[in-house]
Amino acid sequence: MTSVVTRSETPPIGPVVGMVGAGQLARMTQQAAIALGVELRVLANSPDESAARVIVDIRFGDYRDLAVLREFAAGCAAITFDHEHVPTGHVEALAAEGLAVRPGAAALVHAQDKAVMRERLTAIGAPCPAWARVSSAGDLEDFGKEHGWPVVLKAVRGGYDGRGVWVCSSVDEVEEVLAGDTELMAEAFVPFERELAVLVARSPHGQGVSYPVVETVQRDGICVEVIAPAPGLDPEQAAQAQHIALKIANELGVTGLLAVEMFQLADGKVMVNELAMRPHNSGHWTIEGSRTSQFEQHLRAVLDLPLGSPAPVAPVVVMVNVLGGEDPDIFSRYEHVMAHDPGVKIHFYGKEVRPGRKIGHVTALGTDLEEVRARARHAAAHLATGEYV
Amino acid sequence: MTSVVTRSETPPIGPVVGMVGAGQLARMTQQAAIALGVELRVLANSPDESAARVIVDIRFGDYRDLAVLREFAAGCAAITFDHEHVPTGHVEALAAEGLAVRPGAAALVHAQDKAVMRERLTAIGAPCPAWARVSSAGDLEDFGKEHGWPVVLKAVRGGYDGRGVWVCSSVDEVEEVLAGDTELMAEAFVPFERELAVLVARSPHGQGVSYPVVETVQRDGICVEVIAPAPGLDPEQAAQAQHIALKIANELGVTGLLAVEMFQLADGKVMVNELAMRPHNSGHWTIEGSRTSQFEQHLRAVLDLPLGSPAPVAPVVVMVNVLGGEDPDIFSRYEHVMAHDPGVKIHFYGKEVRPGRKIGHVTALGTDLEEVRARARHAAAHLATGEYV
Repeated sequence: MTSVVTRSETPPIGPVVGMVGAGQLARMTQQAAIALGVELRVLANSPDESAARVIVDIRFGDYRDLAVLREFAAGCAAITFDHEHVPTGHVEALAAEGLAVRPGAAALVHAQDKAVMRERLTAIGAPCPAWARVSSAGDLEDFGKEHGWPVVLKAVRGGYDGRGVWVCSSVDEVEEVLAGDTELMAEAFVPFERELAVLVARSPHGQGVSYPVVETVQRDGICVEVIAPAPGLDPEQAAQAQHIALKIANELGVTGLLAVEMFQLADGKVMVNELAMRPHNSGHWTIEGSRTSQFEQHLRAVLDLPLGSPAPVAPVVVMVNVLGGEDPDIFSRYEHVMAHDPGVKIHFYGKEVRPGRKIGHVTALGTDLEEVRARARHAAAHLATGEYV
Repeated sequence: MTSVVTRSETPPIGPVVGMVGAGQLARMTQQAAIALGVELRVLANSPDESAARVIVDIRFGDYRDLAVLREFAAGCAAITFDHEHVPTGHVEALAAEGLAVRPGAAALVHAQDKAVMRERLTAIGAPCPAWARVSSAGDLEDFGKEHGWPVVLKAVRGGYDGRGVWVCSSVDEVEEVLAGDTELMAEAFVPFERELAVLVARSPHGQGVSYPVVETVQRDGICVEVIAPAPGLDPEQAAQAQHIALKIANELGVTGLLAVEMFQLADGKVMVNELAMRPHNSGHWTIEGSRTSQFEQHLRAVLDLPLGSPAPVAPVVVMVNVLGGEDPDIFSRYEHVMAHDPGVKIHFYGKEVRPGRKIGHVTALGTDLEEVRARARHAAAHLATGEYV
């Protein structure tokens, strides 16, 4: 008879990388880990999480508990993250005990605390919107008077995918937020033409590489589409954006990936919006679209291996996210998508389908932007809802 | 505290594909399964096997035991194989119970029994070397007299990677083999110029696709290098080779992948050497080199989904196998290989390194054959032995 056994007794044959968090980023990192023979260990909350379904060496526990992190990290060649929520102090504590935590606390705090990030970026000369910490209606009123309305009110810590961000035209609109105990900051609203993102990697040895600048499209604060490279971007502006991202990675001492989300203004200039220090939605196109996927790159960087080529493999790559619709049976819709377009690549994250939830993405490659984008949009829309757009 | 738990209680969210065998083919299939949200279940012998290290839903048991197979197959949308050793009768029995076994027994037997394969291929007009069943020294002597020496003596069942094949110039050389109880056949030695392989996929619905014809280089019966596409191959000969492979897939009712190994003669014509009905070493280049990897293609085919584009993504792709050397510490040699060539792709199978054992492969892509091949050879040689070739 067959038997189900745990394999916890089997000694690893490759270096163990511990990733805190078991979402789709950890899941896709596993694909790269399999190729390199790296043993990916993940700290998860529950066995039905995206990465928990595909990773053998999984531990369950609370990442806010230092004892859990310490036990999780034992035996790992490097510790890294699929989200930014591990307390900075815990990251410091692990490093103090000699563990290779990548990125380290001194870098990671800039992806955890938007006020610290703004202070630092301003200090190193990276272009940012006007901003200020606010702790009262009066602070916000003053900021609005000085920089004009609308104002972007943000939680200093903890926001993601549009959560923790309020675009307001007056103090009244955010009364409740201001009355709460969330640490807040205000930013001038940037009348951007479009959003760009630059993904770079930096290794502990100090090697750095930048992927091509991409255009990102957000809807309700969630990334829904990425075009690589950003269409019509002036080569000098592209080089400048990459320079800014690499400079931030270097100045902050990032190890691993750094995604720099940017606004592009009407005059072509860019401003830094957000930072993330992990594989990023704006880099999913690299799985098929670049010589080195962002997931392989992150593993190489955190293991201090030489970085891989970020060269694109096609003139145009478009990634479109799949958000859950009303009908959860996504698999019944593979048939149409695959028959319609034998070249489109489907990624489903193994998550329970709920309306609006990010459950996967599709990638199309080619030479003509309109055609490639239409293919990717068609596939994503059909997977989500069964519609033929 | 963290805890190690089994996840056998977590219901699958995608279709379950059961693969019998847990070698590197199952391991690489898992990378494709992760993207598609397919839950790959594997039947393994031990937890240190290549795929056992990276697949959550793993069962341990003997594939020669029908009860084990039956229990393993329960709940699977399709059953498939990473090797050809499951008894044909068991495959028939599972299908009779209503399980979707792909390929089915009637096709699979042609990859298990070389005599059955030769009979069938001859009947459908596929070009083959002269051959005959032999059961005595006299039979072999007669065959040699008729077709000339050397003769290729083969075990009808069970050989792979050069095992079960004896090239002999006289009966005396294989006296021991002939004295054993192995079922044997003789084939005329083919004075081939080079070896080619054609990988095709066929779905239960009858859709078929062919990857480009590749050149394979064998050493001691083990595939060591694959060049895609086969250099200098006349387009008509390429089309003919693809036609032969697709015809075999169709006539035999193959579902899933079929690899057709061929000899190319001095006059350009091809002859079929061996068949395999699973992902194949000659198709590893497709992971980065084709729009659809052979592993994704196999999953699509066995799930009866529309097949993916087999289009290559670069003019030249070279795959070189990594065979274990004396020093097992392959990871210490990643540094040089990655720094030397940021574009080369490393695949390590998570197997214990032993001299001569196939432990991984590398793939290089580009436009110039000599340059791409040199890059792949350099990387593979260094990973194996630490040499700088």
